[in-house]
Amino acid sequence: MRQSQLFTKTRREAPSDETAKNAELLIRGGFIHKEMAGVYSYLPLGLRVMEKIENIIREEMNIIGGIEMKTSIFQNKEIWEKTNRWDDSIVDNWFKTKLKNGAEVGLSFTNEEAYSNILKQYINSYKDLPVYPYDFKEIFRNEARSKSGIMRGREFYWKALYSFSKDQEEHDIFYEKAKIAYQNIFERVGVGSSTYVTFSSGGTFSKFSHEFQTLTDAGEDTIYVDENKKIAINKEVFSDEIIESLGLNKKELVEKRAVEVGNIFTLGTKFSEPFNLKYKNEKGEEKMVFMGSYGIGLGRLMGTIVELLADDRGIVWPEAVAPFKYHLVEIPSVKPEVKETAEKIYKKLGENDVLYDDRDLRAGEKFADADLLGMPTQIIVSEKNIALGKLEIKNRLTGEVKMISEDEL
Amino acid sequence: MRQSQLFTKTRREAPSDETAKNAELLIRGGFIHKEMAGVYSYLPLGLRVMEKIENIIREEMNIIGGIEMKTSIFQNKEIWEKTNRWDDSIVDNWFKTKLKNGAEVGLSFTNEEAYSNILKQYINSYKDLPVYPYDFKEIFRNEARSKSGIMRGREFYWKALYSFSKDQEEHDIFYEKAKIAYQNIFERVGVGSSTYVTFSSGGTFSKFSHEFQTLTDAGEDTIYVDENKKIAINKEVFSDEIIESLGLNKKELVEKRAVEVGNIFTLGTKFSEPFNLKYKNEKGEEKMVFMGSYGIGLGRLMGTIVELLADDRGIVWPEAVAPFKYHLVEIPSVKPEVKETAEKIYKKLGENDVLYDDRDLRAGEKFADADLLGMPTQIIVSEKNIALGKLEIKNRLTGEVKMISEDEL
Repeated sequence: MRQSQLFTKTRREAPSDETAKNAELLIRGGFIHKEMAGVYSYLPLGLRVMEKIENIIREEMNIIGGIEMKTSIFQNKEIWEKTNRWDDSIVDNWFKTKLKNGAEVGLSFTNEEAYSNILKQYINSYKDLPVYPYDFKEIFRNEARSKSGIMRGREFYWKALYSFSKDQEEHDIFYEKAKIAYQNIFERVGVGSSTYVTFSSGGTFSKFSHEFQTLTDAGEDTIYVDENKKIAINKEVFSDEIIESLGLNKKELVEKRAVEVGNIFTLGTKFSEPFNLKYKNEKGEEKMVFMGSYGIGLGRLMGTIVELLADDRGIVWPEAVAPFKYHLVEIPSVKPEVKETAEKIYKKLGENDVLYDDRDLRAGEKFADADLLGMPTQIIVSEKNIALGKLEIKNRLTGEVKMISEDEL
Repeated sequence: MRQSQLFTKTRREAPSDETAKNAELLIRGGFIHKEMAGVYSYLPLGLRVMEKIENIIREEMNIIGGIEMKTSIFQNKEIWEKTNRWDDSIVDNWFKTKLKNGAEVGLSFTNEEAYSNILKQYINSYKDLPVYPYDFKEIFRNEARSKSGIMRGREFYWKALYSFSKDQEEHDIFYEKAKIAYQNIFERVGVGSSTYVTFSSGGTFSKFSHEFQTLTDAGEDTIYVDENKKIAINKEVFSDEIIESLGLNKKELVEKRAVEVGNIFTLGTKFSEPFNLKYKNEKGEEKMVFMGSYGIGLGRLMGTIVELLADDRGIVWPEAVAPFKYHLVEIPSVKPEVKETAEKIYKKLGENDVLYDDRDLRAGEKFADADLLGMPTQIIVSEKNIALGKLEIKNRLTGEVKMISEDEL
């Protein structure tokens, strides 16, 4: 894409009420627009990042048998009354609104009820199981405060998969597959080496749930990390007994701040019971469906990538989620070869992979913009470089500069 | 995709409270799930249709210079007060909710305010214009009644593009391009021959707006159609004076029922004035930005396709929006060649283009399902056909049956 065609521009300052580093940088770069605390619009560059994250998650969910659908944002009170989660005294972060006739409607804050209710219509026999539906949708949570930028929104884009299995045994097999899929996702988006499978509080049906916690001071959680074994324990379940039961050594555990970028949870029959979600097994006996949930907040993940990798010059995107792989920076010149060379490279690498800074601005401004926007590879085309028969290639992460010929590119 | 892996099943009956043909058929086919009146979830087959429609619209918007972004659903009261559209006595179909501190938040029912507010930050000079941002998002309208299935939802998926131009002249050129893009869209999704550019009421800045009206008795609008010239006049502006000004002949106009599948509108400075959305021209003079809006409801369009093309056996999808191009129907047999042949064809045509009915059901049930689900081409693999060395190919729309060899396929 030509930068002259991108309507957003970089800004020196973020809004004064924005305190989170992720949102500050993303607003300054024109990736997002703050509508109010905890609510952001995604501008063209930001949407491109979100879509890349979304596609990576979708691929990994499909590999493990996920099937995509899209549930509504509006939630029917009747359905939530079945699990006793409609009442504001029980769930305190609902957003609700009203129809003209006064009937209350909820805004999705999670999907267990909607999924259980839909699957109830289609699951009758053991032949219908297992099934792994998922969706991407906007989720709304009425947070009292919202000061973490896109890492904790009142409105946020969320992937949720629910597993419906015949029994715990079948569930456990999928749960382990999902754990690997999640590790793949965090690896692919570029935060793998800082992300720990973290033992967290479970429920009636499992001792633990598993969180995926990425180390960053911007996180709200405290975890205890075993750096060699690549696992961690959330503070909320941290005890000598738990450490021992996991075969860990307290002396090797380090306290860290982290953000929960994903979580997987064994629900068991917690939701299938109130929905009477049963199936007939091979012997014709009625059994409860065994469920699990698997969530990832896409905005939170995008914010975490920014927090983790940004430096004092701006954002650093891993290639897999960067809006563009290359930032082609043409240094304006009276010599026509400069523009000609840049145009040639732009055509060669393609508008989908290149942000081409074709604007009539000074070199210093262009370099500052390229560093702030954070494409992984900068290609600098200038009069000086052309005289040498070379292009200047800068790695945004390492700062390493190489001079290469056009052919080598 | 293997039908045995699809968790949805067809149903003989739709819910008794569902009166719209589009929703009845889509629910029976397992494309959608009714959450409440005017609110539907999209199940895997339904989501596939929506995504195909979405991609067609996206392609056409990008061709005319559109740039995609994604604005939030939550709307800031302050922004809407600028245009005096916050008050429920002025806009009577708002859904609103409240933050913990009691502050009101709106749910998007349209995007003019959000876009004007965002673009205000980025437009300064004539060099920044024109710009054509758009998004796809869920929209919420508090309809008193909602009885048209997915053709008029309280929650619905909507594409909106807004044009920001230097002046009326630049605007008019884009407006005509958008009109053609819209005609391309309706042509490509398969309702082109029944869709009329319809003159409708304009505003301060143009005599008319243009609606795209598709003829169907399920529509809520009355239009007067000139079938030769392929244009129409909405009842709301129908008068001798208007007929004459458009060079039409009253005798050649036929009254029809239709549904508005899209509309384009010249906004002029209606929104740029309250937002003080100005730019400096070449002479350094301040001018108001000249705007236009271009909307399409994707659910409504999907519902219209169903209403228009369905027959008494079920849905008929045009190939461009069908969840799958082919419905491969294997008629269960003790002879292994039947399954082997079906599997071979499935691999050859690809899981993305084929819904493969590999279920152990009677032929009659399978044929009824294939007709209800409406893939454009059915490929029937049976013992009888294989004995003849042929495959049976049925065109869902025309009912035409051909016997062809595997090679011809």
